[in-house]
Amino acid sequence: MFMKNCWYVAGWSSEIGADTLVARTICGKRLVFWRDESGQICALDDRCCHRGAPLSTGRKEGGTVRCMYHGFLYDATGACIEIPGQAAIPPKALVRRYAVVERHHWVWIWMGEASTADESLIPDTHWLDDPDWACTKPGRLHYDVNYQLVNDNLLDFSHLSYVHANTLGGSEEYAQLRSKIERLPRGLRITRWFMDRPPAPFVAKLLKAKGMTGNVDRWNNYDFILPGVLIMDSGFAPAGSGAERGDRENAIQFRHCQVVTPETENSCHYLFAQPRNFDKDKPDVSEALYHSILTAFEEDRAVITDQAQNLAADPLFEPVACGLDSALGQFRWLIAQQIKQEMAADAGAPRAEVVGERSAKFG
Amino acid sequence: MFMKNCWYVAGWSSEIGADTLVARTICGKRLVFWRDESGQICALDDRCCHRGAPLSTGRKEGGTVRCMYHGFLYDATGACIEIPGQAAIPPKALVRRYAVVERHHWVWIWMGEASTADESLIPDTHWLDDPDWACTKPGRLHYDVNYQLVNDNLLDFSHLSYVHANTLGGSEEYAQLRSKIERLPRGLRITRWFMDRPPAPFVAKLLKAKGMTGNVDRWNNYDFILPGVLIMDSGFAPAGSGAERGDRENAIQFRHCQVVTPETENSCHYLFAQPRNFDKDKPDVSEALYHSILTAFEEDRAVITDQAQNLAADPLFEPVACGLDSALGQFRWLIAQQIKQEMAADAGAPRAEVVGERSAKFG
Amino acid sequence: MFMKNCWYVAGWSSEIGADTLVARTICGKRLVFWRDESGQICALDDRCCHRGAPLSTGRKEGGTVRCMYHGFLYDATGACIEIPGQAAIPPKALVRRYAVVERHHWVWIWMGEASTADESLIPDTHWLDDPDWACTKPGRLHYDVNYQLVNDNLLDFSHLSYVHANTLGGSEEYAQLRSKIERLPRGLRITRWFMDRPPAPFVAKLLKAKGMTGNVDRWNNYDFILPGVLIMDSGFAPAGSGAERGDRENAIQFRHCQVVTPETENSCHYLFAQPRNFDKDKPDVSEALYHSILTAFEEDRAVITDQAQNLAADPLFEPVACGLDSALGQFRWLIAQQIKQEMAADAGAPRAEVVGERSAKFG
Repeated sequence: MFMKNCWYVAGWSSEIGADTLVARTICGKRLVFWRDESGQICALDDRCCHRGAPLSTGRKEGGTVRCMYHGFLYDATGACIEIPGQAAIPPKALVRRYAVVERHHWVWIWMGEASTADESLIPDTHWLDDPDWACTKPGRLHYDVNYQLVNDNLLDFSHLSYVHANTLGGSEEYAQLRSKIERLPRGLRITRWFMDRPPAPFVAKLLKAKGMTGNVDRWNNYDFILPGVLIMDSGFAPAGSGAERGDRENAIQFRHCQVVTPETENSCHYLFAQPRNFDKDKPDVSEALYHSILTAFEEDRAVITDQAQNLAADPLFEPVACGLDSALGQFRWLIAQQIKQEMAADAGAPRAEVVGERSAKFG
Repeated sequence: MFMKNCWYVAGWSSEIGADTLVARTICGKRLVFWRDESGQICALDDRCCHRGAPLSTGRKEGGTVRCMYHGFLYDATGACIEIPGQAAIPPKALVRRYAVVERHHWVWIWMGEASTADESLIPDTHWLDDPDWACTKPGRLHYDVNYQLVNDNLLDFSHLSYVHANTLGGSEEYAQLRSKIERLPRGLRITRWFMDRPPAPFVAKLLKAKGMTGNVDRWNNYDFILPGVLIMDSGFAPAGSGAERGDRENAIQFRHCQVVTPETENSCHYLFAQPRNFDKDKPDVSEALYHSILTAFEEDRAVITDQAQNLAADPLFEPVACGLDSALGQFRWLIAQQIKQEMAADAGAPRAEVVGERSAKFG
Repeated sequence: MFMKNCWYVAGWSSEIGADTLVARTICGKRLVFWRDESGQICALDDRCCHRGAPLSTGRKEGGTVRCMYHGFLYDATGACIEIPGQAAIPPKALVRRYAVVERHHWVWIWMGEASTADESLIPDTHWLDDPDWACTKPGRLHYDVNYQLVNDNLLDFSHLSYVHANTLGGSEEYAQLRSKIERLPRGLRITRWFMDRPPAPFVAKLLKAKGMTGNVDRWNNYDFILPGVLIMDSGFAPAGSGAERGDRENAIQFRHCQVVTPETENSCHYLFAQPRNFDKDKPDVSEALYHSILTAFEEDRAVITDQAQNLAADPLFEPVACGLDSALGQFRWLIAQQIKQEMAADAGAPRAEVVGERSAKFG
């Protein structure tokens, strides 16, 4: 069960070449992506309407795609425009198309009705291709777990002290902090300041090279947008230099962009990149940061995959909630409400009523 | 769900040696095949009646087989004839036997009650060992799909233009033809003539060696017998030489024999050979033809396996029927009717009634 | 479905080091084992109560274990004793602990309520570390079958003639014997004497080295304790030397200890060792015996795994019972009764009634 009326990141722009057909499963739907002759990306169900063969193993013919089982030809809207040996095309001969928007190196897809896609809801990730920021190369991991377990992880940074003790984390005191959590129209805002401590392992060398050898103030402030987009303002500044009041002259700053996109109920895509405002012309810094975060994200994947196997082994397990879980509890509730609302709308129930219910609880 | 009162090909004669026990699953039944002392092939359920161990990993003792778990001994009829340390054999101590007929290098098995097996229903494949024809070596592929998807493929040759563009196929015009389809008592007859065109890639070199450098008339005329036996008269003749009227003096002719045998609901065996009436003493031609058709059949397997995965991912998919599907639609209907009739007979319903219903639709 | 109020062997003592966390699944429960600071082994559910991550991939901190996802800390009783950033520990913050007893190199676990564990029910296996006996090294195999199929195998030694013809077995006459079977309070006693025959292959060389070149009397007398513990007095003596009357001066004797412990419904652990009263100071004899029995137990595993696959392929299969099956039939009935009794007790039914029912049948 997934939200439909929202934007998911399907992949990196660079994955979809001019001549390629790319197969990818999103929210349980097998999709094919390609570029039409103007370079626009289109996405269709990856299944010929005739006998169900995939289109992604077919033949791209300019801006159209031919199924290479019996030769049905489709345009970028999903309409079948040719059936070998048959003049009339039945009206049902089409495959579903999805709204797609390419923005700042990411390919966004709206899994609901294409006509209802609302581009204004695409979160801003302009740092990914902003010349004022330097970015790590495109990152991607595949998880064999339900995407909400990855969301859970990203919604509570106290795990940095344990999962990432030797990479992103550091002192166990970091885990003792409680983040400030605020509601956004479509998500949560999480603010976490960790003042006057030694820096995290992954930036220690970078800071030293800049002459910052003492304690630092550290922040991890992010918006987590439904159903799985994290955009984070984070950084390190000399302790007491006023970064929390906006004085960031001597700080190093990042704008992490990360997305969790469901593949199936039991797997998901995880894409990430880390723009920064320093050492912009140093590819070796990009490379070193990329490997630092990849190493850390592999640490996450290991523990989350183990967790998922434990949960699968005993569906009756009831977790014991604690203070750490506030953000993840709220976020799971928001997703559940959104799905409930979409199902009610599909069933013809008055939409306003459901929205009212939500407002009452989170107002 | 499979037809039972019909013949399936279980394998090649050569697979069952004098001293071997061969395990093979047909229509979801695990079977063991071996030769008795006279060389006759017998087939039993591959499961000792005692504790369920397989007989195929047991010990062949002349014309009998001993289960090597606790020593039960069975004869070729499936009767248990020895239980260690016990004089009396319980009447239930037996395993089911199946009727088997070895004919023209193929081992045919009747999956219904052995006593109802009707040898006159075995399709004629005498070309496989007729000295007037030369044959490729025994061919076999294993599919991880329901056998009806392979039948579908074989019932519509328009896929040659796409799946086999560089092997069996050729021009896309071939796909624009419509075959003639006729009912047989237990199957369909399909006739397809493709006149005055360049030859298919896989025979181009052969024809050139015979001085046929111009266009050809091509035919693919086959009977497709329930539940999965294809016997085809095909060939190539100089364009306009009258092959369609029976004048085949300068033609090269084939008699393909192919069978699709269900293994489980989601897998099947595919056996094939290609007798021909030319270059009979040239083993290199046999070898080249074998590799041509194997390459082509691997192309089929790739697209059909992809198709099956798409279908499995969404059981609600409804294919859009088109003119190409006439033969496969009829054949699926025939199988469904036969299964319905067998189920009714098993349940004791009057058989004639069901047959009447069938006649009404296809009369 | 498994018995809970009984002892299972979870592993060898040597598997649980001073600094290790050992994950093992018993009766479908994922467990973690470790030693506290006094060296006592404890066992808990291998799942943090917070979000379900495994404890076995956590960090051992003295006699406590920390979950390395968000830092929850547990003591050896399963109580959570620290939650980062939170002073109050919710009463529900604990994981289940199991009673564990380490005895004669084996780690026994009681899968029912720890408070009901009754150490007096642990079968005696003192030969495993008795200085008067020499023992093969710790043996272990993993089976991908339900544990009762392995019990079945061990409850009927007639399979030695077939499965182990070249290892433990020998003549097919051995299979024609019928064992004496007696009820024990929690199991069966099986007695089998095989008089005046050539020795089994695996001891032929050993006996020859001792000058025993003629026929022997052989015995395999064992208690099989619920739900899967075999303790066997076996041996070989010169034919007619009176071993069956207790005169074993010239005999070689073994005290096999073997356990079958369910892992899941479809897999189990099999642990074994073979104490002997001869050649006690010869490690090469230990090594040779270990490899003999391992080879034989691999033979068992092959046939039992084949059998399990056959049974899984057809849940409707009804085995034909014969005289060989007396012990296994009784043992399966005992386990079923015990499970029924435990379920009735869990449901609050009067316990005495169920016990009475059992007494009536086996009195």
